[in-house]
Amino acid sequence: MKPVPLDQLCINTLRMLSIDAVQKAKSGHPGTPLDAAPMAYCLWQRFLRYDPADPDWPNRDRFVLSAGHACALLYSLLYLCGVEAKGASYPSGDRLAVTLDDLKSFRQAGSHCTGHPEYGWTSGVETTTGPLGQGAATSVGMAIAERWLAATYNRPDYDLFSHNVYALCSDGDMMEGLSNEAASLAEHLRLSNLCWIYDDNHITIEGPTGLTFTEDVATRFLAYGWHVERVSDANDLMLLDKAYQTFIDTHDRPTLIIVQSHIGYGAPHKHDTNKAHGEPLGAEEVRLTKEFYGWDPDADFKVPEGVVAHLRAHMGKRGDAAHAAWRKLFAVYRAQYPDLAEQIDQMQQREVPSGWDAALPSFGADAKGLATRDSSGKVMNAISEHVPWLLGGAADLSPSTKTNLEFDFAGDFQAPEAEQAVSYRGRNFHFGLREHAMCAIGNGMSLSKLRPFVSSFLIFTDYCRAALRLSSMMELPLISIWTHDSISLGEDGPTHQPIEQLASFRAMPGMIVLRPADANEVVEAWKVIMHLKDRPICLVLTRQPVPTLDRSTYANAGGVARGAYVLADTPDGKPDVLLLATGSEVALCVAAYEQLKAEDIKARVVSMPSWELFESQPREYRDTVLPPTTTARVAVEEASGFGWERYTGFDGAILALHSFGLSAPSKVVAEHFGFEPAHVVAAAKAQI
Amino acid sequence: MKPVPLDQLCINTLRMLSIDAVQKAKSGHPGTPLDAAPMAYCLWQRFLRYDPADPDWPNRDRFVLSAGHACALLYSLLYLCGVEAKGASYPSGDRLAVTLDDLKSFRQAGSHCTGHPEYGWTSGVETTTGPLGQGAATSVGMAIAERWLAATYNRPDYDLFSHNVYALCSDGDMMEGLSNEAASLAEHLRLSNLCWIYDDNHITIEGPTGLTFTEDVATRFLAYGWHVERVSDANDLMLLDKAYQTFIDTHDRPTLIIVQSHIGYGAPHKHDTNKAHGEPLGAEEVRLTKEFYGWDPDADFKVPEGVVAHLRAHMGKRGDAAHAAWRKLFAVYRAQYPDLAEQIDQMQQREVPSGWDAALPSFGADAKGLATRDSSGKVMNAISEHVPWLLGGAADLSPSTKTNLEFDFAGDFQAPEAEQAVSYRGRNFHFGLREHAMCAIGNGMSLSKLRPFVSSFLIFTDYCRAALRLSSMMELPLISIWTHDSISLGEDGPTHQPIEQLASFRAMPGMIVLRPADANEVVEAWKVIMHLKDRPICLVLTRQPVPTLDRSTYANAGGVARGAYVLADTPDGKPDVLLLATGSEVALCVAAYEQLKAEDIKARVVSMPSWELFESQPREYRDTVLPPTTTARVAVEEASGFGWERYTGFDGAILALHSFGLSAPSKVVAEHFGFEPAHVVAAAKAQI
Repeated sequence: MKPVPLDQLCINTLRMLSIDAVQKAKSGHPGTPLDAAPMAYCLWQRFLRYDPADPDWPNRDRFVLSAGHACALLYSLLYLCGVEAKGASYPSGDRLAVTLDDLKSFRQAGSHCTGHPEYGWTSGVETTTGPLGQGAATSVGMAIAERWLAATYNRPDYDLFSHNVYALCSDGDMMEGLSNEAASLAEHLRLSNLCWIYDDNHITIEGPTGLTFTEDVATRFLAYGWHVERVSDANDLMLLDKAYQTFIDTHDRPTLIIVQSHIGYGAPHKHDTNKAHGEPLGAEEVRLTKEFYGWDPDADFKVPEGVVAHLRAHMGKRGDAAHAAWRKLFAVYRAQYPDLAEQIDQMQQREVPSGWDAALPSFGADAKGLATRDSSGKVMNAISEHVPWLLGGAADLSPSTKTNLEFDFAGDFQAPEAEQAVSYRGRNFHFGLREHAMCAIGNGMSLSKLRPFVSSFLIFTDYCRAALRLSSMMELPLISIWTHDSISLGEDGPTHQPIEQLASFRAMPGMIVLRPADANEVVEAWKVIMHLKDRPICLVLTRQPVPTLDRSTYANAGGVARGAYVLADTPDGKPDVLLLATGSEVALCVAAYEQLKAEDIKARVVSMPSWELFESQPREYRDTVLPPTTTARVAVEEASGFGWERYTGFDGAILALHSFGLSAPSKVVAEHFGFEPAHVVAAAKAQI
Repeated sequence: MKPVPLDQLCINTLRMLSIDAVQKAKSGHPGTPLDAAPMAYCLWQRFLRYDPADPDWPNRDRFVLSAGHACALLYSLLYLCGVEAKGASYPSGDRLAVTLDDLKSFRQAGSHCTGHPEYGWTSGVETTTGPLGQGAATSVGMAIAERWLAATYNRPDYDLFSHNVYALCSDGDMMEGLSNEAASLAEHLRLSNLCWIYDDNHITIEGPTGLTFTEDVATRFLAYGWHVERVSDANDLMLLDKAYQTFIDTHDRPTLIIVQSHIGYGAPHKHDTNKAHGEPLGAEEVRLTKEFYGWDPDADFKVPEGVVAHLRAHMGKRGDAAHAAWRKLFAVYRAQYPDLAEQIDQMQQREVPSGWDAALPSFGADAKGLATRDSSGKVMNAISEHVPWLLGGAADLSPSTKTNLEFDFAGDFQAPEAEQAVSYRGRNFHFGLREHAMCAIGNGMSLSKLRPFVSSFLIFTDYCRAALRLSSMMELPLISIWTHDSISLGEDGPTHQPIEQLASFRAMPGMIVLRPADANEVVEAWKVIMHLKDRPICLVLTRQPVPTLDRSTYANAGGVARGAYVLADTPDGKPDVLLLATGSEVALCVAAYEQLKAEDIKARVVSMPSWELFESQPREYRDTVLPPTTTARVAVEEASGFGWERYTGFDGAILALHSFGLSAPSKVVAEHFGFEPAHVVAAAKAQI
């Protein structure tokens, strides 16, 4: 073994641990760790402000591995840097985020080294990545959060929030439309705390990127307005160092560092080929690679002496000192600004400030009623005024989704230099027609412990499901608000009328779908939302007015919290037929119920705004609402009927859609598809 | 009324018809028709080669209205140009695609002027648009199709295919990641027959685009490698004319024409504001707008004399002549190349050439078996060799999805100048990590009557659902192939393991989901696929090997065509319990069946590869497969159980997933979640 300087030894240790982990697992991606180790090392060792003893320190720099397939590199870093475990996934408490045993059991059940990085399961993983583009877009949300926190909570001499956000991106990350959307917005917002490192290794799974990707990425980012740096050799620490320093010194725009690299660097037969990407090198190639690096080919999972100490002496020491200084600063800040400090504490715990519900409206009975998008807009405004970190916006639809925060001090979130009237303290976001980036950015903001909401029409969830799925997987309480929720949106027609979207979210693990029936159910929906800490929610709202039900006649809307409740019933509580509905179809069922009642037919209306909340109730409650012996049932929803059989069984009736919608005025559309009291009444009678 | 030259009169007629239609409907988007009418007029009147008498002429130029909300403009064009109705939506035959009555009933039930343009319902609408970015990306597929058709069927002196593809795009189209992906690929492929017209009116729904969109679009497109033209005044026909001519004269890359325009041009109070975008101008503003244009403010839906004649004299005459010349050329071509001409005919009719199944493999029983992605790769290759226009690729995953066409003459679809070994005749496409663009491009290719397939992992359907939904709405037989279809993909873990995706497509109207159980079901699946003419299909395949069932013991795989069939049964055909499964879980149920049989328990295995095909069978058949009296049922699927209650009722058992997956080897994952014969056996016994 030829001697190598300590930096190089650390870098090669990252490389060798990564290829050993992949080889032992007989599964994984060795090529990127081999090429990107110097980029990650240089950043962590010389720049990242990160305390290994507390990976949750709010003012830490963030490192996002958007190229999630290269996770062996991240795990090796976490291990060598001695990052400690924190969080619910570590019942035993005192341990490292990643142990050598975890690395040796890479991609095996129980290991904290999973096949792609999983937030919440492995401390130090800042966000779950793997589906390409997500990490990059999420990092924009983290950078936004830092700007907002700094603008809102920093005070003269108190730079509580001052961190940077880095994302390591692959060729694939650059190709995905998601990252394009996010990059365009990041520059518009002039997020100078954001740095993307593009590992330009020219290889994807099908072969050289020249097969399909020949654009000039640097010029594209210049077109957005980013600062662009080039590093012509991924192994040149001096060039890398200079590029990172230039990012630090750039104060008016985000930075892209394009690093020319060689996938599988050092693997003699796989270097620069797609063979290095997604499969183990093979035992013999691992030996040859180790020889290339002057490593003992027989030593697996070897950490040479001096490596850990070298990382501690720089990366560790810097992070420790920065965190200690911050703690001290925060203690003084707390004395001077106790209210603000308390807000920061609450935010970190995902708690709701007391008094959040001081201005909650309630709505009187009103046959004409109002659209649930309108009542939600009122309720959300009433809450937001009392929850400083509740903030968000729409994908160019806020006038339609009614999600604009309208109180005086709400303001627009914009780069301060753009206009005098706006600043990074603003709470209204203009995401543009970029639904996918909006949701990934929402995840990033939530990961930084803000309480973001995002919004568009329900149909456009089709553009951003992948990000919403990650909200659910990461257990983030992202609030997503989807209006124009059925064919009753009317004239815009089938391209805008959701059909299968409700079912598709009900099938998604962890996601809560909540479709309130009237203004008072909207109030209750927001009570549920505000107390969610670890689940995302889709709040599904109408474009068209729906009656505000008379709660002195029908049951209190508080039942929303249990997901489903008996809204109208027979006096003896023994109905012959159940009418089941959500959202705007509840009023339709109430109308049918009144007709049936007039004919002495014993019906019950069950409002079912959230199946997920209902399923989590005890069986006893569920059986009270839906008595198992009452199998005469009619479910009504202006959407695909898919899934309703859960509540109607083989024999119940489902009034739903079997096709795409129709372009016509709202009432005409509803009638065309049979959403009229008479049809519900007829179906109920046929059931008995 | 001051006199206006004829061109201007035509343009203003388009504008006035559009705002009248919107005003009468009390719904719609007047602003873009007012600003974009000159761009559309100049193109149609002076450049578009389009025969109003035959909107299906295969070599017509395509005009895609990606800004679908501006459909009143398109309908006004179709009406004034006298485009004739063709297709199944016109039972009466001889009529115009859009009549004055249609315009007067804009956005009303039954009108051919729907709220957004709908392909198949309105002749002359080249693709359904509305969700932004879709039209632009779809236009890339049409341009690809032209290049492929030209390279494959043109012969010296026979330029059968030589058309151009134009797409009119809004600010929103430019922001969506989808269009970014498509633009990058369009230049890589050097599609010089593609022209995007960007209506740069600086206004979206929330306000000026400066709120969120400040990138330099021209430079971005230059970074892709496009030719970029600027037109500084949307009303200057001379500048527009020059820009289109430059596109025609540009032979090595696609062209973007950026047209500076003013939304709501001519509406005195709404001009240049978001008030002009998505709501009628109002009666008074309509009057004032008409006055601005020197129009009689009391004349609604007025078409001044000379307008129709002027369009006929240029646009109509040019199209008629071009089509007549083409017909003559094709007749001579047919005499010289009868086989090729027949192929073109068959393609236009969406027919399958005889002999397509000449080389179909069949697979012998094999307990070890092979992955359905592998068997599908073999079958698809065997078919493709005999179906010249079956072609496609993957989003950088063809080595994993096994969708590469491997026969000698398949080749890669690439710009001929890039490499000598490739050309526009190639049938393997490299879409890059651009799933959404891939599917929209697939739609465009299908609209041009090719038979495209697209492919990726099932999880990545989350990136492209919006385009797949349009396949279904347009009734296009797009073949989409999704592998790595369950948690059994193993180590890549939860980010890559689909859970809710099957349910989400089963809930989508029109879409066929087909998840074959073994190699012979794959053969039958492809037989179904090849005969589809008007429905898209998701073919869902395993990563891991599945046994090839012994069809002398179990039923013939031909039952796939009926969606579900009895695979294994009791001798008397009177089972006590039904085991229901799809794909890889069928073999699991067969193993359980054998164990139950050994214990003298009467079970039946039903293979259910496609619920949609099964639901379209007569009730009699369905009741034979799933006897209503046999309510002891166990459904098994490595996915969300959502929706299975349709077949299990209140009391059946569903062995499925209730959470995200796990990173571990395939078998470990399956066992972890209970997908083992013992669990199926136990569930079956508990049912009886």
